[in-house]
Amino acid sequence: MMNQTKAQTLRQLLQTKRLAAGVGARDALDARLIENAGFDFVWASSFCVSVAHSVPDASILSMTQFLETARAMNEAIDIPIVYDADTGYGGDANTVYAVRRLEEAGMAAICIEDKVFPKQSSLLPGGAHPLVPPAEFARKIAAARDARRQGEMVVIARTEALIAGLGIDEALRRAEAYEQAGADLILFHSKSKTPDEIVECVRRWDGKAPVVLVPTNYPDLDEPAMEALGKIRMVIYGNQTVRAAVRAVADVLQEIRRSRGTRSIEGRIASVNQVFSLQGEKLAEKA
Amino acid sequence: MMNQTKAQTLRQLLQTKRLAAGVGARDALDARLIENAGFDFVWASSFCVSVAHSVPDASILSMTQFLETARAMNEAIDIPIVYDADTGYGGDANTVYAVRRLEEAGMAAICIEDKVFPKQSSLLPGGAHPLVPPAEFARKIAAARDARRQGEMVVIARTEALIAGLGIDEALRRAEAYEQAGADLILFHSKSKTPDEIVECVRRWDGKAPVVLVPTNYPDLDEPAMEALGKIRMVIYGNQTVRAAVRAVADVLQEIRRSRGTRSIEGRIASVNQVFSLQGEKLAEKA
Amino acid sequence: MMNQTKAQTLRQLLQTKRLAAGVGARDALDARLIENAGFDFVWASSFCVSVAHSVPDASILSMTQFLETARAMNEAIDIPIVYDADTGYGGDANTVYAVRRLEEAGMAAICIEDKVFPKQSSLLPGGAHPLVPPAEFARKIAAARDARRQGEMVVIARTEALIAGLGIDEALRRAEAYEQAGADLILFHSKSKTPDEIVECVRRWDGKAPVVLVPTNYPDLDEPAMEALGKIRMVIYGNQTVRAAVRAVADVLQEIRRSRGTRSIEGRIASVNQVFSLQGEKLAEKA
Amino acid sequence: MMNQTKAQTLRQLLQTKRLAAGVGARDALDARLIENAGFDFVWASSFCVSVAHSVPDASILSMTQFLETARAMNEAIDIPIVYDADTGYGGDANTVYAVRRLEEAGMAAICIEDKVFPKQSSLLPGGAHPLVPPAEFARKIAAARDARRQGEMVVIARTEALIAGLGIDEALRRAEAYEQAGADLILFHSKSKTPDEIVECVRRWDGKAPVVLVPTNYPDLDEPAMEALGKIRMVIYGNQTVRAAVRAVADVLQEIRRSRGTRSIEGRIASVNQVFSLQGEKLAEKA
Repeated sequence: MMNQTKAQTLRQLLQTKRLAAGVGARDALDARLIENAGFDFVWASSFCVSVAHSVPDASILSMTQFLETARAMNEAIDIPIVYDADTGYGGDANTVYAVRRLEEAGMAAICIEDKVFPKQSSLLPGGAHPLVPPAEFARKIAAARDARRQGEMVVIARTEALIAGLGIDEALRRAEAYEQAGADLILFHSKSKTPDEIVECVRRWDGKAPVVLVPTNYPDLDEPAMEALGKIRMVIYGNQTVRAAVRAVADVLQEIRRSRGTRSIEGRIASVNQVFSLQGEKLAEKA
Repeated sequence: MMNQTKAQTLRQLLQTKRLAAGVGARDALDARLIENAGFDFVWASSFCVSVAHSVPDASILSMTQFLETARAMNEAIDIPIVYDADTGYGGDANTVYAVRRLEEAGMAAICIEDKVFPKQSSLLPGGAHPLVPPAEFARKIAAARDARRQGEMVVIARTEALIAGLGIDEALRRAEAYEQAGADLILFHSKSKTPDEIVECVRRWDGKAPVVLVPTNYPDLDEPAMEALGKIRMVIYGNQTVRAAVRAVADVLQEIRRSRGTRSIEGRIASVNQVFSLQGEKLAEKA
Repeated sequence: MMNQTKAQTLRQLLQTKRLAAGVGARDALDARLIENAGFDFVWASSFCVSVAHSVPDASILSMTQFLETARAMNEAIDIPIVYDADTGYGGDANTVYAVRRLEEAGMAAICIEDKVFPKQSSLLPGGAHPLVPPAEFARKIAAARDARRQGEMVVIARTEALIAGLGIDEALRRAEAYEQAGADLILFHSKSKTPDEIVECVRRWDGKAPVVLVPTNYPDLDEPAMEALGKIRMVIYGNQTVRAAVRAVADVLQEIRRSRGTRSIEGRIASVNQVFSLQGEKLAEKA
Repeated sequence: MMNQTKAQTLRQLLQTKRLAAGVGARDALDARLIENAGFDFVWASSFCVSVAHSVPDASILSMTQFLETARAMNEAIDIPIVYDADTGYGGDANTVYAVRRLEEAGMAAICIEDKVFPKQSSLLPGGAHPLVPPAEFARKIAAARDARRQGEMVVIARTEALIAGLGIDEALRRAEAYEQAGADLILFHSKSKTPDEIVECVRRWDGKAPVVLVPTNYPDLDEPAMEALGKIRMVIYGNQTVRAAVRAVADVLQEIRRSRGTRSIEGRIASVNQVFSLQGEKLAEKA
């Protein structure tokens, strides 16, 4: 008998009224820690994986490299992965190719955004990144949907209209077009420092597709506030793992350098045995 | 004009009297943080990279996966990489093949250990892992040396005799055979909780090849103590980065889960802008 | 609704009385040509893929490289793949890890052989390659079986006893042990220039597991002869594709070199349009 | 002492008056056969490598996959590789990133074409593919040049103006802009069935950068004719290897299927021993 796929698991989760919460991962270790902490899914984050490779989050990393990382994540965990496919890697044919590879790799959801390829990170300070016309991106969403062979992988359409400075009306117009094209969920992305913009956007959204939020820049909108607002079914904590690691690793390195040894840091870091428990120990036992 | 290779840089560093200090990395981001902290080299660590992939450190990860990670590290930093090749990936032909690929990838040094393939992590509690006969491993060291096309990549022979419970005499006998076979440096590995065993071993070592230590389990032997002891030219802090990350990421995830938001953790993690500075931003500026 | 897996397709095929015939492939293009020619399955051949990478068929290519090639094959065809896993990549833990990755990648069958890792090609002239003890290899077969999560991937145990010069009795003893351990099929490998050895071996085999043959060296045993012999359910033409390509490509290169142009070879090679038809043209149409 | 790089070898070759001839390869085996046949370089061909992966030659294969194949080619041969980078994988940042990876991988030359990303194969029948404006592509050429750290890798600018139906004037205007931007060589691509168009284009070209031709569609222009024409320094036989292989492999597969055995094809294919000689046998001897 065939087990339930992770896409099915994610779809069931989205049927419940509860907000599904996931966190961005840089690699399989992060994914394992996210699962251990009790989250519902892992966000295979373009930002985090790019940082891990020390390249800009600007369509530099190839789909091959990213998918290999996501596959390693998936092997390490039982919860579903929401895969951040940026702009879909080029034209519709690239997106179709990606969707098939993602489905084969057991990804539960794909998220595609309406920026022009090659993209720039949405969080970069400075000028707005251009978007593709809504009809063109709707076609890409439809192509992604149709490319699925099982028809279960969740398709998330992410609009960058707010970040591009095009305003809430345009964000809603785009969301509607993407829903019409078959998107299962709409991700409204904002980098406003306060929740006002996103809250108004969600309030005015009257589509059937539930909303996904990534509250990196507006932490005041926490899960209870999202639940109160309604319509939101998924929250992604995009990059806190890698930011926690950067701070902790930099601090420990500085202390080793200063003290010329590791005595003073032993109490601040996980033990080797704790790390062993994150390494698929069942495999090791068989050896 | 051809720039100096990283192997040449590392050789020059080993000519000085100063102890060269490096730290284990799980990926290019770790490597970048290690360089930023002022260390002399990065240890492309089998343990750390295995943990990052959430697989046991037991010859599960292939050379391909490991080399790809090491290559990404090398692209992100200017300091040399010491590459942890475990047992050399099988027989002599596998080691020869690996040496050529490592040289092409610009690795400054290769470290090979005298355990039987497939290996188990030296830090695992429990029974000793079997070693290959010293003459067989000496042949592998010689094969690795001869396989180099430029003749510059540093070859480190690591003996696990102490961890295998074979005693200091056997460790020294093996070190001598490996030096005869052409090893540039000898790594004596110990997991004793106190430095006594390793100190005695180093004291009794009368070969010409300098010594490398990995003081994970005996942090009381710090750099000043190593300098006082003499003969040691390289210290590797094997896995503190990934242990620092595991602790910090687990803590932050728990707090997000508990508080259902990220407000309370913002002050404890690196800012997004700090992370941008670790991502090869010069590339981004060109875009 | 979930489609039938390729492992299920292969199992159904093996239920019929008909001999299933497959051919070794070097890459996805070969796989596509094999499917187009009407064969039942593709043999993802360690020999062919090693040749394509221009490395010896001696456990040099990593599982990562090989699996990536097999995955590209699988994406290009609808027929099942029988995956040549050599000795299983090391110890039992390596085989267990491989089985899970192969299952995730949609491989229909895995074939493991009882040589010592790292292996040498069975077709190399010269001394016999050592085998692992039968009980040890039987444990590996059992571990491979148990590692499957769906329980459908076919497990083929290949004994090299005949090639190692251990005789038919030993080959049969090993086959029996491997069948007991759970092998679905037994591959008796022989490089005798006449079919006598293999014919006697099959005649004397009284296990329930059907037999697989690779008649590279004894082409006189064709499919009708195998059907007459009985017990054989699968025939693998191991490396004829790559040998045909080597001859044809070498000839054409020589002629281009000699004639300093391509006029004289146009009639001997496929047209560009024929090649386009092998490239997943449906994807291209979407672009 | 540092050996001469392959980029230096290729530059020396281009200094001579002799026409350098190379052939497109699908993998390391093809590259080895091309070297054995006496050609000057290998063309790591996007068309051939895409065919080998059975995907359209339409920016579907990632740089990662392509570079990995090119690296395997480079490991197998001593002659230089000219790397077909299509449109440069996206924007300038993608090209800069690619140039650095190619340089690290020892590629002797990079060829970039002025089509819009994602590209379509130039050989596809039907509508013309749009080109980027000449100034934009000239900037990309300049970025590629500047990204080189050693400054030796040869940069080839390929204009698709003739194939796009923009005429010889536009092709020459573009070639001039690309030469100004620092291209070492200009590749005029034509798919006219007769050499007239390309001959006129070369005749009218009065830049200093030598010309590269790919006479797939106009085989009547052979090497002596090119030498007579002058200005041409490099000829690439783009895809004859893979077309020879497709024909030969398809024929052999059909015959195996028909005859239900391999007896009748043994004389038409290379022997196993001939194939062994293409597999880096020196490595095997060490095993």
